[in-house]
Amino acid sequence: MTSTLALSAPHPRAAFEKITIERRVLRADDVLIDVKYAGICHSDIHQVNEDWGPGNFPMVPGHEIAGIVAAVGPDVTKFRVGDRVGVGCYVDSCGHCESCLRGDEQLCLNTPVATYNGREYDGTLTYGGYSRSIVVKDHFVVSIPDTMDLAATAPLLCAGITVYAPLVRFGAAGKNIAIIGMGGLGHVAVKIAHAMGAIVTVLSQSLSKKDDGLAFGADHYYATSDPETFTALAGSFDFILNTVSADIPLNDYLSMIKTNGSFVNIGFPSEPYSLHASAFVLQQRAIVGSNVGGLAETQRMLDFCAEHGIVAEIELIGIDQIEDAYQRVATSRVRYRSVIDIAGTLVA
Amino acid sequence: MTSTLALSAPHPRAAFEKITIERRVLRADDVLIDVKYAGICHSDIHQVNEDWGPGNFPMVPGHEIAGIVAAVGPDVTKFRVGDRVGVGCYVDSCGHCESCLRGDEQLCLNTPVATYNGREYDGTLTYGGYSRSIVVKDHFVVSIPDTMDLAATAPLLCAGITVYAPLVRFGAAGKNIAIIGMGGLGHVAVKIAHAMGAIVTVLSQSLSKKDDGLAFGADHYYATSDPETFTALAGSFDFILNTVSADIPLNDYLSMIKTNGSFVNIGFPSEPYSLHASAFVLQQRAIVGSNVGGLAETQRMLDFCAEHGIVAEIELIGIDQIEDAYQRVATSRVRYRSVIDIAGTLVA
Repeated sequence: MTSTLALSAPHPRAAFEKITIERRVLRADDVLIDVKYAGICHSDIHQVNEDWGPGNFPMVPGHEIAGIVAAVGPDVTKFRVGDRVGVGCYVDSCGHCESCLRGDEQLCLNTPVATYNGREYDGTLTYGGYSRSIVVKDHFVVSIPDTMDLAATAPLLCAGITVYAPLVRFGAAGKNIAIIGMGGLGHVAVKIAHAMGAIVTVLSQSLSKKDDGLAFGADHYYATSDPETFTALAGSFDFILNTVSADIPLNDYLSMIKTNGSFVNIGFPSEPYSLHASAFVLQQRAIVGSNVGGLAETQRMLDFCAEHGIVAEIELIGIDQIEDAYQRVATSRVRYRSVIDIAGTLVA
Repeated sequence: MTSTLALSAPHPRAAFEKITIERRVLRADDVLIDVKYAGICHSDIHQVNEDWGPGNFPMVPGHEIAGIVAAVGPDVTKFRVGDRVGVGCYVDSCGHCESCLRGDEQLCLNTPVATYNGREYDGTLTYGGYSRSIVVKDHFVVSIPDTMDLAATAPLLCAGITVYAPLVRFGAAGKNIAIIGMGGLGHVAVKIAHAMGAIVTVLSQSLSKKDDGLAFGADHYYATSDPETFTALAGSFDFILNTVSADIPLNDYLSMIKTNGSFVNIGFPSEPYSLHASAFVLQQRAIVGSNVGGLAETQRMLDFCAEHGIVAEIELIGIDQIEDAYQRVATSRVRYRSVIDIAGTLVA
């Protein structure tokens, strides 16, 4: 076992404190990673706060991890010491179910192992990227192309793949699409969808981020606080990608989608949506869930982003700014993703 | 103009009375049909009762029409006097929008003309199949194969195509599917899905129609009043076809669908569904609307049913039994579709 420094929430809603955790001895197919940067995902806050149900404590969050390979097990051929790598939401899956065989490890029918707040198949609690090092099975590690800024790439490991996968699945190229929300997920979705060749409309609460949205590649930008938006855009979109985890007037959004079009949801509000039959049956619309993406697709996403010069817009923070960043994420004031400088500020 | 006898609800929720209505002089592409039989669709009751909004009165319902061609306009080549024909939910559409060009006349972006309680593009109120004759543009008339019983085929013009189209679209053949509801729509769905080669499970409130369901081709039959049904069938189905227009626990039904599977909805309750993100986002399930089907597809449905010996299970009634039948439809006591003997009982 290797001891490493980590930031832990000792119990629900608690402030983070430095602790020492143990990382397992490298197995034949393991990669030891020196964590350089860890993005703060809104889901980190939900999990620390137990918004989605009981958590496992002490909790070391972090599933948007960028770092450098420090050691590899004897069977690892894909990575060498010194490689730039990333780790996302999962660190293991059964490998033999229908979903795993299809490359959708995140949909593993035997419950994939979450990067933190999860359990390895042997019962060990998992600790995430708010730590100086992490040991991960090579299949769950991806390469970060040399041209990409390591800190600004970290958020792509969750936010990037979460928007890239549905944009590919629903064929954004050449389509007229809308993205609801211009936060950590939404701003990356705008960049990727634009690079894919979609006509991109941002639907945001206000126009406060309009200049940024257009700079990221949006063609149009509307405020959803204005009821006129919904009538002006009725029946317009091939699909809408919803990145917002809050209660939204789903039926009104559905009215902006074309016949046979889709409302693709990565949002995860705790309260249920109210869904009228009239909003989707008559025009044969679909409301479809999307959940992260598989490992091969995550690598394709990174390669695509490298090719198109896409990274997240980030605020690099030290570990003493995490509590403040959590407050600002929860109130939508981060532009557009906070990334923790782990190597630079998590010191003894 | 031609005068013809019809059954009309003079105002919302009123009892039917015999009236005389006018049918237009045949245009070049029109077909005059002697109506023989008209099915009673649950939507007839909703429209007479104005459950779905204001109706146009006097109202002559009926969009499950089977009859014999009595005359044709000079440009009609598809039909001759004496042909067995059917008419479904729509009698016109714009013909040039994206949906019409794709053959989805029912999704016409310029509002298709409903067979009754609708308006022709010139503003004329439409009257449906509870009448001795009807004049319909040839494109909206389909052929009923000689082997099919005319009365038992009438319900296929709405119920049949409404279930056939999504079963084709979602590829029922070889799939493990469930059908919610064993009423007018559901019992036809079981027959068609079985004939397509699906493994068919019926999800009905009780087991009271189980013997019938198995006889129609269901492989399994479960009562949804038993909570055990939902745990026993968790994650089982490629897709579920919901034929029930009542409030249902949507999230519980979604839990029975596989990863990436669909909940296909033809139900149309007046109250909204409650939809939890957790029920569809994590396993990437879809909730998809389906609305009848196009004319070419309706013909394919009839040909398919003829080939497989499928018709609806009907109770043939006279016009003096309509009020009673409406009561029994509303309380799910019809087995399985009431069809009015128009030619035999609607007499002066």
